[in-house]
Amino acid sequence: MNEKELEIVKSTNKKSKPQTDQISFGKTFTDHMFIMDYEADIGWNNPRIVPYEPITLDPASMIFHYGQTVFEGLKAYRSEDNRILLFRPDKNLQRLNLSSERLSIPAIDEESVMNYLKQLVSLEQDWIPTTEGTSLYIRPFIIATETNLSVAPSQSYKFMIILSPVGSYFSGGIKPVSINVEEQFTRAVKGGTGTAKTAGNYSSGYQAQAKAKNEGNADVLWLDGLEKRYIEEVGSMNIFFKINGEVVTPELNGSILNGITRMSIIEVLNEWEIPVVERKISIEELYQAYADGELEEAFGAGTAAVISPVGELNWLGRKMVINNNQIGALSKKLYDEITGIQTGKLVDSHQWILEV
Amino acid sequence: MNEKELEIVKSTNKKSKPQTDQISFGKTFTDHMFIMDYEADIGWNNPRIVPYEPITLDPASMIFHYGQTVFEGLKAYRSEDNRILLFRPDKNLQRLNLSSERLSIPAIDEESVMNYLKQLVSLEQDWIPTTEGTSLYIRPFIIATETNLSVAPSQSYKFMIILSPVGSYFSGGIKPVSINVEEQFTRAVKGGTGTAKTAGNYSSGYQAQAKAKNEGNADVLWLDGLEKRYIEEVGSMNIFFKINGEVVTPELNGSILNGITRMSIIEVLNEWEIPVVERKISIEELYQAYADGELEEAFGAGTAAVISPVGELNWLGRKMVINNNQIGALSKKLYDEITGIQTGKLVDSHQWILEV
Ligand SMILES: Cc1ncc(COP(=O)(O)O)c(C=O)c1O
Ligand SMILES: Cc1ncc(COP(=O)(O)O)c(C=O)c1O
Repeated sequence: MNEKELEIVKSTNKKSKPQTDQISFGKTFTDHMFIMDYEADIGWNNPRIVPYEPITLDPASMIFHYGQTVFEGLKAYRSEDNRILLFRPDKNLQRLNLSSERLSIPAIDEESVMNYLKQLVSLEQDWIPTTEGTSLYIRPFIIATETNLSVAPSQSYKFMIILSPVGSYFSGGIKPVSINVEEQFTRAVKGGTGTAKTAGNYSSGYQAQAKAKNEGNADVLWLDGLEKRYIEEVGSMNIFFKINGEVVTPELNGSILNGITRMSIIEVLNEWEIPVVERKISIEELYQAYADGELEEAFGAGTAAVISPVGELNWLGRKMVINNNQIGALSKKLYDEITGIQTGKLVDSHQWILEV
Repeated sequence: MNEKELEIVKSTNKKSKPQTDQISFGKTFTDHMFIMDYEADIGWNNPRIVPYEPITLDPASMIFHYGQTVFEGLKAYRSEDNRILLFRPDKNLQRLNLSSERLSIPAIDEESVMNYLKQLVSLEQDWIPTTEGTSLYIRPFIIATETNLSVAPSQSYKFMIILSPVGSYFSGGIKPVSINVEEQFTRAVKGGTGTAKTAGNYSSGYQAQAKAKNEGNADVLWLDGLEKRYIEEVGSMNIFFKINGEVVTPELNGSILNGITRMSIIEVLNEWEIPVVERKISIEELYQAYADGELEEAFGAGTAAVISPVGELNWLGRKMVINNNQIGALSKKLYDEITGIQTGKLVDSHQWILEV
């Protein structure tokens, strides 16, 4: 695909920027957004950066009826020496295309979109907060826009990128959370859409989330949909366990999202020569390791928190308290390493950073 | 809930109505639509019938990101004596609320909404086509509208009803279709959202649909997500088989949609004293019945087609040709009975019809 020329329409009415400590996730957006359109006969076209504003859609647009949509989530960080850093954004665009394939959405040209994304972030750079743990959240997404109630792939789409400044995930310092092991609801199953970042995978978890919260937990540990035995993910994050000195994470089995934080953690552990294995791990095995005193650490891994330690797992009335409800040494070391690379404090030996 | 007063804003710019033989499904909409809003602190409010027009939403509206949405599909028929008939619309509103519960969407008041729906259909009655097999398709749906990227239930929603005239599903007479038994992709699994009419369930089937079409089939026969053995649905319809004089349909197992056509067929068969059973049925069992010459008829059942005969099933290279690729006698009798009741040609002994 030839890169289409990017049109830029600047906002004449700039919003005031929120104070870092008053940002709640995902509610504040910057002055501009990126849009491009797709029509079956001409492909992706009309890339443009325009003032952030509502979009207008026919009520019969397919996005409202059949869920043909995919998204991504990544962050821009401001380094101490004032550079703007993206963490493995190529992986996000690759994954977006994989998600799109699953949802029968036409692929985007990753190279052009990376360029548009950089231009948008560059234009909005004053929106990147600078205090520790903050960043500018980047949400690319695609929606089906054809006006048609037929159950079939849309002939037209919109690809958009919106930006939202985010405060620190751990404002009072990193605190382990309590998690409920979900036995009834299923997030995803082989042959379904679990490996894609698509809307339906998220709202389908709300009932399990509510149940977990009612019982005093922060989120849900998902088991596989087939046997309700094997551990898959935690909330919207991948999950890791340190068991008797070895790090274990569920293998990519066709229903788990291939997290970019997850893949980075595995690479860092390999580099550190700490044993790490991707394999099936059942909740019974985990409980046994706990009972034997071998479950040393547990943490979720994803763009939002980077590392989110699990302090307590509740499974059918059994409670596992992990590392005394404190963040583990390895969890902390991984958090420092990855966030260090992301914010330019540590050397980027893997070439994971793209400077805008 | 007290019924809120319905505001009606009439369109001053009426569209021209399409000729019945030029209607393609789901692309033409009437002059008006129904909308009402939900906010967490006041509940459903501001019910109104307004000119059909695009809606305007913030790009960060939750519907675009996490798929919190449900819908329904039913039809208004014009009888020969010019009455406007709805077929079991109470069941659609009940199912809408069941779908909403699964998606953590607040319930609507079924009685008020039935009243709004009737008023909308009444206002648009000139849009109901009158030739054989035609009707006015009614699409109620709810979308999450809060501007927030948090993965959590929305605090605001829009409930809408749009109307679309539809031509005959079988314009050249009822023709059996060829169906591919899908072995790789999964529509739904227990603990998932299969029993809800929610967007994500539909686009997740597009890849399997495309595969089926590439191989010359009209649609997909879905097997259960756990063992890939038991038959669930066909396309967006429930499925029935007549085997050795007995009618068999998959039981409602927690991943199948509870179709209103399905439940009506079961009631009619009971009335006719034709044996009908809801149970698990595996694809192997079906193939064996076919090999033994006992698979007499097969048909999909849903609002769109009412009865859609299956003439051919393709399963891992094995082809089952059913009833010589002709519509079966029972399929035809059921089609005539249900469409007869729907259009007011036959006596409505079950009190299934609501006159507008
Ligand atoms: C379901 C799910 N699992 C895991 C992750 C973690 O992926 P990443 O590390 O790429 O953010 C995400 C996204 O954040 C997700 O939505
Ligand atoms: C997945 C699915 N199954 C079955 C049906 C049939 O249900 P009904 O008879 O209520 O139209 C539908 C809707 O038409 C559906 O979407």
